[in-house]
Amino acid sequence: MTLTIETISLQEARTIIEACEKKANEIKHPMHIAVVDAGANLVAHARMDNAWTGSANIAINKAFTAKSFDISTADLAKESQPNNQFFGIHNSNDGRIMIFAGGLPLLKDGKVVGAVGVSGGTGEQDSKVAEAGKAAFEKSLALVK
Amino acid sequence: MTLTIETISLQEARTIIEACEKKANEIKHPMHIAVVDAGANLVAHARMDNAWTGSANIAINKAFTAKSFDISTADLAKESQPNNQFFGIHNSNDGRIMIFAGGLPLLKDGKVVGAVGVSGGTGEQDSKVAEAGKAAFEKSLALVK
Amino acid sequence: MTLTIETISLQEARTIIEACEKKANEIKHPMHIAVVDAGANLVAHARMDNAWTGSANIAINKAFTAKSFDISTADLAKESQPNNQFFGIHNSNDGRIMIFAGGLPLLKDGKVVGAVGVSGGTGEQDSKVAEAGKAAFEKSLALVK
Amino acid sequence: MTLTIETISLQEARTIIEACEKKANEIKHPMHIAVVDAGANLVAHARMDNAWTGSANIAINKAFTAKSFDISTADLAKESQPNNQFFGIHNSNDGRIMIFAGGLPLLKDGKVVGAVGVSGGTGEQDSKVAEAGKAAFEKSLALVK
Repeated sequence: MTLTIETISLQEARTIIEACEKKANEIKHPMHIAVVDAGANLVAHARMDNAWTGSANIAINKAFTAKSFDISTADLAKESQPNNQFFGIHNSNDGRIMIFAGGLPLLKDGKVVGAVGVSGGTGEQDSKVAEAGKAAFEKSLALVK
Repeated sequence: MTLTIETISLQEARTIIEACEKKANEIKHPMHIAVVDAGANLVAHARMDNAWTGSANIAINKAFTAKSFDISTADLAKESQPNNQFFGIHNSNDGRIMIFAGGLPLLKDGKVVGAVGVSGGTGEQDSKVAEAGKAAFEKSLALVK
Repeated sequence: MTLTIETISLQEARTIIEACEKKANEIKHPMHIAVVDAGANLVAHARMDNAWTGSANIAINKAFTAKSFDISTADLAKESQPNNQFFGIHNSNDGRIMIFAGGLPLLKDGKVVGAVGVSGGTGEQDSKVAEAGKAAFEKSLALVK
Repeated sequence: MTLTIETISLQEARTIIEACEKKANEIKHPMHIAVVDAGANLVAHARMDNAWTGSANIAINKAFTAKSFDISTADLAKESQPNNQFFGIHNSNDGRIMIFAGGLPLLKDGKVVGAVGVSGGTGEQDSKVAEAGKAAFEKSLALVK
């Protein structure tokens, strides 16, 4: 039988990006924000004015990574250091795997339906902004119920 | 002396994407839309629900191409066919050059300040949607004056 | 509204390269020197006679990196070691990120308008030569005022 | 016995680039100019102000190609069209082979000692500018004799 999966819509991606931008403005640091769907494919990206030029690629790939392994990139980072079990995983998937904080899987009913990736600041800043996006997504799910 | 250039903002990119989506809805075909800045760096991307999974890369790279050579990808396509002057250019820039319709440079006061790339349909569909985005950008410039 | 940014000119890039060459001659070590603009795109490169053949790529990518994240590659290096917050960032941007000394952002009025990258010697040598280029750029800005 | 080869110096590369810039200014079209040595390694690159952002890669790779096969890229183009003997060669060397006009080998005493690559205009414009660089190199050789 064919599988039925749920995956994030463009509207939801925009809700997430909006919340991330709001948080980025609060902490006064412009960011790149990206959202991928259940297939790890890009749904939306936004570069806030004056964010670093090199972070588009990273934000997109943090989201890609979080969905690819259903894990936050901060957690993956721990396992991917030298001498740990996934050291070298950054080399897989044509170099698209990001092993530092800022990528979060997005869950609905316990299943990963997409992911958000944030880049443009320190790991702490990126994480805060990504968390705001994730929280907005979870809130939007609760409203629908 | 340092050069002063103008480059597209996130707000403008969103105006463009919004107009593209409207046109895509009119022709009933979901699209990927991407906008790059004057440095050919990604500003924003949106995948309309149910658009082809392979077209995110193409939309982004059509915009990249249109800015990289200040030309529409449809015009570049003509010059890039076998036996024409730019045949082989698709191979440059690490394979990011797209030589089919859907990428348009965006001008302000005669200078290219960014580009829009659309992918997800036929060349004709992509072009129509990209043109709508370009028109919206030009209209927004006129309003500011 | 369109953003206005400033970006380095070819003339400025040459002033920087000239100063770097002078310093490289002082320390008797031939170098590759590269300058990128505000969009992280290459403006100029020079390989001093007998400099290592493998360092063109590195000098260009050090400049690319310094502009991509508005940071010196020596500072980025610290954050990109195992167990630090950006470990793995060298893997992003299609492998173009260089995480060792020799790349410096170039600022005008507090904004990054380009970057210089130097490669061909030890980290200490590369840094000295890059600093000479940066100092020459800052001096040229002061003269214009 | 070890081979002795002659290869272009940075000073010669600059003579070539200067002549190319002069010609580009004459035809009023800004260009990217690159010179590689006898090992096909980059010696120098310059992007004239306002030249296309996508042409740095192409100019460097046209020079790389002209040296790689001791042939002008315009001549290589003829052999690289569909149904001709080298069709597909653009795919070799990690995609660095450019098969359209603008790259010229530079000879001394009948041997290729480097190459110049020009990009930023039509094939005709690129060729004219590259020819000016080659002529300047040949003139400089004659002066030394």
